[in-house]
Amino acid sequence: MKAARFHGRKDIRIEDIPEPELRAGAVTIDVAWCGICGTDLHEYLEGPIFVPAPGHPHPLSLEEAPVTLGHEFSGTVSAVGDGVTGLAVGENVVVEPYFVCGECDSCTAGNYHLCRKMGFIGLAGGGGGLSEKIVVDARWVHPIGDIPLDEAALIEPLSVAHHAVARSGAKSGDVAVVGGAGPIGLLTAAVLKGMGVTTIISELTQARKDKAVSSGVADHVLDPSQEDVPARVLELTGGTGADVAFECAGVNAVLDTMLDVVRPAGVVVNVSIWGALATVDMQKLVLKEIDLRGTIAYVRDHPAVIKMVQDGKVDLKPFITSKIALDDLVNEGFDILINHKDTAVKVLVHP
Amino acid sequence: MKAARFHGRKDIRIEDIPEPELRAGAVTIDVAWCGICGTDLHEYLEGPIFVPAPGHPHPLSLEEAPVTLGHEFSGTVSAVGDGVTGLAVGENVVVEPYFVCGECDSCTAGNYHLCRKMGFIGLAGGGGGLSEKIVVDARWVHPIGDIPLDEAALIEPLSVAHHAVARSGAKSGDVAVVGGAGPIGLLTAAVLKGMGVTTIISELTQARKDKAVSSGVADHVLDPSQEDVPARVLELTGGTGADVAFECAGVNAVLDTMLDVVRPAGVVVNVSIWGALATVDMQKLVLKEIDLRGTIAYVRDHPAVIKMVQDGKVDLKPFITSKIALDDLVNEGFDILINHKDTAVKVLVHP
Repeated sequence: MKAARFHGRKDIRIEDIPEPELRAGAVTIDVAWCGICGTDLHEYLEGPIFVPAPGHPHPLSLEEAPVTLGHEFSGTVSAVGDGVTGLAVGENVVVEPYFVCGECDSCTAGNYHLCRKMGFIGLAGGGGGLSEKIVVDARWVHPIGDIPLDEAALIEPLSVAHHAVARSGAKSGDVAVVGGAGPIGLLTAAVLKGMGVTTIISELTQARKDKAVSSGVADHVLDPSQEDVPARVLELTGGTGADVAFECAGVNAVLDTMLDVVRPAGVVVNVSIWGALATVDMQKLVLKEIDLRGTIAYVRDHPAVIKMVQDGKVDLKPFITSKIALDDLVNEGFDILINHKDTAVKVLVHP
Repeated sequence: MKAARFHGRKDIRIEDIPEPELRAGAVTIDVAWCGICGTDLHEYLEGPIFVPAPGHPHPLSLEEAPVTLGHEFSGTVSAVGDGVTGLAVGENVVVEPYFVCGECDSCTAGNYHLCRKMGFIGLAGGGGGLSEKIVVDARWVHPIGDIPLDEAALIEPLSVAHHAVARSGAKSGDVAVVGGAGPIGLLTAAVLKGMGVTTIISELTQARKDKAVSSGVADHVLDPSQEDVPARVLELTGGTGADVAFECAGVNAVLDTMLDVVRPAGVVVNVSIWGALATVDMQKLVLKEIDLRGTIAYVRDHPAVIKMVQDGKVDLKPFITSKIALDDLVNEGFDILINHKDTAVKVLVHP
């Protein structure tokens, strides 16, 4: 079968590899669609990062590069292994793409996403969504009912957003500011909006501002180059400030703004990955008793996310901006994300 | 009566002023002891900061400099105003020294310590503990039973520590690291130890390390100039890391260390006041899903703190390092805190 495999930095090859063998407790999934994640792009440009380098196998997958990429995927169960219950051939599914040890302090505390040995399927081994088939342990396979398979490929990044929102403690009726309307910022706003939170998006670039409006996830869009965002948030909240704010840009000015827009006892969640150290005015944390919280991936979020999409609380269609074939992954897919990143939200690959 | 009044930077005068008049809903307290807070010292050296400058009266006290200083005090009720219940002449008390509006979003949410107009008695007006008598609304007056009056003057800073611990969510059986063994670091460790948390103090200076040991608040004292603190914390916690950590130094290296010593899903509370921007490695917040929380003052902490002291969970005696007369406030009291800050913990003033 065809698979996109990471061999090294700027060396991703579409190769013909053997089909994965079904094992007890697992199912075979015929992949329908796989999104390209920013993480995949980082691996391509700067990796190996999450991919285990040659000679350094991942402690749980025991694999090392070359590995198949792709962790944002949907598909249809084509075979069911011994001992699997609750999953049937023909069923459409998505995957929560984890390797976890199940034994460390984080795992036993229920925080399997913080497992000491955690790895992602599609980065650390275990095959990937950028191939025709994948075998995944049933534990990580979530049925999606009648959600269209292309939209379902976005359930993984939507789960990242859902977990970030869960970390914030936001609830219906709250006001949230989202700093940055890239893919994760938009999906964070989508989750917030879907649960009845008023969403204010702060974004500079025109295409992203347009998408924030046209996708329906923003109640208000503010442009920090045109207006004083903290002052406008105060105005929009009757002088109070936002209940929660989300740093989705990895940019210091955005982080500063998020600390300014929240009310006393507000929560700021950092969703982004930073390439440099941030400077933080700790006095803001002190005087308003702000919680600044990190968030990574998801833990037990998938069922709630799938239900949100099934119930029409989140419409994923506006975020699918391109569909390409596996052979075009590097030349077309990565090119879109590098050179047209303002207009691209999610590029889906059909293997 | 005698009172220490702030007139301006480096201009604190011991003056003879009229005794405060009792009003309905308030009590007169004959002050026994008043601690000198770092905040008082900052007002003296760099103020006015919390003191309302001339021409800028505080919105709730309506006072401006000169004002009487002192917000860490104990005393005995000498008169009870109309309508006051639950407080009697002769009763020993401490004061939770607040002005709050009672009307803003923070107040109505129960976060009166984050009141939009919040001021401290003894800084923003309302008299102060560095005088012979003070009249305080009964709401803020807490009976202390048989706690000695000198120790009781430390209940205010102990409440700051208690609130910081409450913000961390620490519970009995947890492991905490306290970065910096100044007055607030020591009292934070005292609260933690008193509630059954294992305490690891990280501190550079010999006198403070000695106090951390002799006061009994540290289970372990680590010296970052001598050992790798994160590695030692891992060792002491069986490879897990601390559950919570407290930045009590306002020093970037200490903040970095606190982010390193906590386990995944750990909490770091910033208790200190910073004179400069901090640099923060946001990746640490992300990958371990750390909560970095600000904390200020106290809210509904005093009754629990008084009970901890009454029950012998915290022994405040080791932290009283000097006792002076009001006339010696500047020359002796401030001098100790400026020139002997490693050995001084709390200087008490008897008016």
